[in-house]
Amino acid sequence: MELLLPHPSNSTPLTVLGFLERAATVYGDSPSLLHTTTVHTWSETHSRCLRVASTLSSSSLGINRGQVVSVIGPNVPSVYELQFAVPMSGAVLNNINPRLDAHALSVILHHSESKLVFVDHHSSSLVLEAVSLLPKNERPRLVILNDGNDMPSSSSLDVDYLDTYEGVMERGDPRFKWIRPQSEWVPMVLNYTSGTTSSPKGVVHSHRSVFMSTINSMLDWSLPNRPVYLWTLPMFHANGWSYTWATAAVGAKNICPTRVDAPTIFNLIDKHQVTHMCAAPMVLNMLTNYSSQKPLKSPVKVMTAGAPPPATVISKAEALGFDVGHGYGMTETGGLVVSCAWKPKWDRLETYERAKLKSRQGIRTVVFAEADVRDPLTGKTVKHDGVTVGEIVFRGGSVMLGYCKDPEGTAANMREDGWFYTGDIGVMHPDGYLEVKDRSKDVVICGGENISSTEVEAVLYTNPAIKEAAVVAKPDKMWGETPCAFVSLKYHDGSVTEREIREFCKTKLPKYMVPRNVVFLEELPKTSTGKIQKFLLRQMTKSLPR
Amino acid sequence: MELLLPHPSNSTPLTVLGFLERAATVYGDSPSLLHTTTVHTWSETHSRCLRVASTLSSSSLGINRGQVVSVIGPNVPSVYELQFAVPMSGAVLNNINPRLDAHALSVILHHSESKLVFVDHHSSSLVLEAVSLLPKNERPRLVILNDGNDMPSSSSLDVDYLDTYEGVMERGDPRFKWIRPQSEWVPMVLNYTSGTTSSPKGVVHSHRSVFMSTINSMLDWSLPNRPVYLWTLPMFHANGWSYTWATAAVGAKNICPTRVDAPTIFNLIDKHQVTHMCAAPMVLNMLTNYSSQKPLKSPVKVMTAGAPPPATVISKAEALGFDVGHGYGMTETGGLVVSCAWKPKWDRLETYERAKLKSRQGIRTVVFAEADVRDPLTGKTVKHDGVTVGEIVFRGGSVMLGYCKDPEGTAANMREDGWFYTGDIGVMHPDGYLEVKDRSKDVVICGGENISSTEVEAVLYTNPAIKEAAVVAKPDKMWGETPCAFVSLKYHDGSVTEREIREFCKTKLPKYMVPRNVVFLEELPKTSTGKIQKFLLRQMTKSLPR
Repeated sequence: MELLLPHPSNSTPLTVLGFLERAATVYGDSPSLLHTTTVHTWSETHSRCLRVASTLSSSSLGINRGQVVSVIGPNVPSVYELQFAVPMSGAVLNNINPRLDAHALSVILHHSESKLVFVDHHSSSLVLEAVSLLPKNERPRLVILNDGNDMPSSSSLDVDYLDTYEGVMERGDPRFKWIRPQSEWVPMVLNYTSGTTSSPKGVVHSHRSVFMSTINSMLDWSLPNRPVYLWTLPMFHANGWSYTWATAAVGAKNICPTRVDAPTIFNLIDKHQVTHMCAAPMVLNMLTNYSSQKPLKSPVKVMTAGAPPPATVISKAEALGFDVGHGYGMTETGGLVVSCAWKPKWDRLETYERAKLKSRQGIRTVVFAEADVRDPLTGKTVKHDGVTVGEIVFRGGSVMLGYCKDPEGTAANMREDGWFYTGDIGVMHPDGYLEVKDRSKDVVICGGENISSTEVEAVLYTNPAIKEAAVVAKPDKMWGETPCAFVSLKYHDGSVTEREIREFCKTKLPKYMVPRNVVFLEELPKTSTGKIQKFLLRQMTKSLPR
Repeated sequence: MELLLPHPSNSTPLTVLGFLERAATVYGDSPSLLHTTTVHTWSETHSRCLRVASTLSSSSLGINRGQVVSVIGPNVPSVYELQFAVPMSGAVLNNINPRLDAHALSVILHHSESKLVFVDHHSSSLVLEAVSLLPKNERPRLVILNDGNDMPSSSSLDVDYLDTYEGVMERGDPRFKWIRPQSEWVPMVLNYTSGTTSSPKGVVHSHRSVFMSTINSMLDWSLPNRPVYLWTLPMFHANGWSYTWATAAVGAKNICPTRVDAPTIFNLIDKHQVTHMCAAPMVLNMLTNYSSQKPLKSPVKVMTAGAPPPATVISKAEALGFDVGHGYGMTETGGLVVSCAWKPKWDRLETYERAKLKSRQGIRTVVFAEADVRDPLTGKTVKHDGVTVGEIVFRGGSVMLGYCKDPEGTAANMREDGWFYTGDIGVMHPDGYLEVKDRSKDVVICGGENISSTEVEAVLYTNPAIKEAAVVAKPDKMWGETPCAFVSLKYHDGSVTEREIREFCKTKLPKYMVPRNVVFLEELPKTSTGKIQKFLLRQMTKSLPR
């Protein structure tokens, strides 16, 4: 038996790209993508992707296998199609956040050596500015995405190498044989987690790791065939936690909203009988704070992640009719690899108690190999007591290949002991469930005590007047750092004072964890994916009185 | 990017064995296995498996890593546990059909070099006889499975090296660290597809291919968490199409019946609110022919495969409340790799039309790479016209590693063109759906025309008097072969004649396909997995009048 070796018939490289072909066969005349007045079927999406891939792989655009093609746009059909079309052409797909500024964008285009950029017409002037910052010989070609819109005139964009997405598509051959990866370890996607500094971190995933994270996403949700999936999560954000590909596997109807605000979302849920959606905790919070909403007609499964959602947000969402799943992952793991798998015995608990248990990140998803909490210095497993903090580490099929052109950064996170170190701080509960305590940089170290900012935030969220809350470290001569809370309120009638919030915290937290300062803001600053920008709040603390 | 290579943190060998550990964490106090009066929880099953694995890997039983441990028994908790415990100890698991005779059994034990045999007490005398046929130095140790039963006394079994399963379990350490495979290509299971001749075919699956076929099974059914799964399909039959492992992944309640007959099965479905089951078509046929059954209280998803089920059986099962899924696979693919994915537009068809479409085998499952129909001589794809027959070929992650100690057999099926040739004959429909026409050896070649035996059988099943039907080739001087039908009837009142059956067929089939002979049998001979034994019928044709 030991003489049996892999053979081409059993070692086909793992890839998600074949999902589309199958969707066209099984779900050919079912709707694939809906956006404003556009409706495509799976057979159209398949054929459109093949045509785009065919043009990309032809000599006309000058892209070679393994080169990077970037995509900058919102959740529109063309951006969905490019998740398949770019890798089907043999190129590497790089989704970029359209909220970046021109400088950050130019850093990414330079670092990734992008040869071509697909850009939504709303972002075209931003991209032109970014491109103008690059040396002439590095400037990529541009293709304008014009989903459901008239094209801006070429002259108004002041470029001569302009192409349109529909043009690229129409020139292509729908019978194109897509490029199979020669190995499942070949890079398929690149995602930058930070482009604001001169040292961007480009996360590279192979066909195999994308396959594994997509399977993770499908199995964790027991994703049924033909769900109705609503896109509030940006596709550029870790490829929409791999649901870009998972929805093709099950022949979903993908609903692409034009705006992510509460009335639009509730309206689309009702109109299309949405069954599944992913949402950043802030989006979930926004939905639960929309006071004119009646409970949903039928339950919607919503998956949230990105930051530990406060228990109150979960319990409010459940009261509205959302079935909240919660997980944890990062761009480096291609989506969620830990999820709060529900235990039957928790059914008997009160709503709030249930939500508290649900706000723990949970246990590794079924096909992901291992998750642990380790001492970052010694690499030893910490006690599984729910108290001892350590760094969260992972091992499994959906961990990235590494960082692009950054061997030091790769080696710092993918260590010799065989684990990927996340940089996140957490505890392991005695029942085997993981709880994220903080990003290591978000921990407040006050007089030698580690204070988890999320723990303080969870208490703040239980205050009925508070809409959003974030806690960061404020530099302090005496204590090193003190916890400082930034909150926005539901009512702006000035009836709540800083002192009341601190008194409220005192009843629920040890004294050392109570925020020394509470700052009221109209709105907390957020990234385009709905994460609160703690680095901005940290800067603000410097101008506060000591 | 091309410098990024696999790292231990992203290349953990794929294996299903970790599913059990996770089930114990998430579903620890939920029932895992029910059999007569035995009820285990997932935490107990996990701990029992670790204990058995620990004893197996200790020196006491003398098993080394990579050696074969055989299991002979019905669907009882210990047999389920061994699907995990044997590979967790680093040994290779070989499930054997308990319906084999002593000679066939001894051939398998010899060929696999089994060092240890776990045997159900009902099969112990059979195994002792088989062992007595082996040279003394090849005789394996025996361990008796005694689920829910008193142990037979050692003296009555006349052996001195007798151990019991519970004894092996109790001696083990529940904190045992199970043996991780060093590579995902390491053999994990061995299954013999034929042991009746002197050249047995031992199918070897690696950890990777078992993982892929288990994922296939889960995704194809959108298997929810905590289903109630009824075991009518023998676990020894391609490891129960991988549901042995899939049920652990989702924390299922596994119901193990003592008998597979219609009253028992319907009773268990009702009592335990069964949600899912797999069944050979003959079992499905038996259930639909059980006249005293009322429609089910709530729908049960049933997956069938192994032989193309006649459309009438499917439509009758659906009328009872079964939601029939149908697939196609073989031991060499570890379970189903083609399934009849439902098309929305078929919903509008009549029951019988729907059943006819459903009896086609379908399309490759979502994570399986490719299925095609090819000319076995030239290796070229046949026309996808639903008419042109060819050999069904596969390529994908759940294809076996190869046949044990049979390089010629392996090379004959896993060819240089990169495909696994199944030996089954089929057509590809224009809509991309595959239909199995026959085992190549079951095709009747009459005057140069290929007659699909299953096509004639499907017509016979539409006759209201016929309970079961099988068509085989009868040697003929003039025509080479002629189709010969064997049928059993629902009523034994002699009211149906051979001539009537032939007349019935003439109204529905081209003349050359009409059976020249129709033979009435009380019951058709079947294997323990419910497959009709066509080789016995073929022998019987020799004694029929010309």
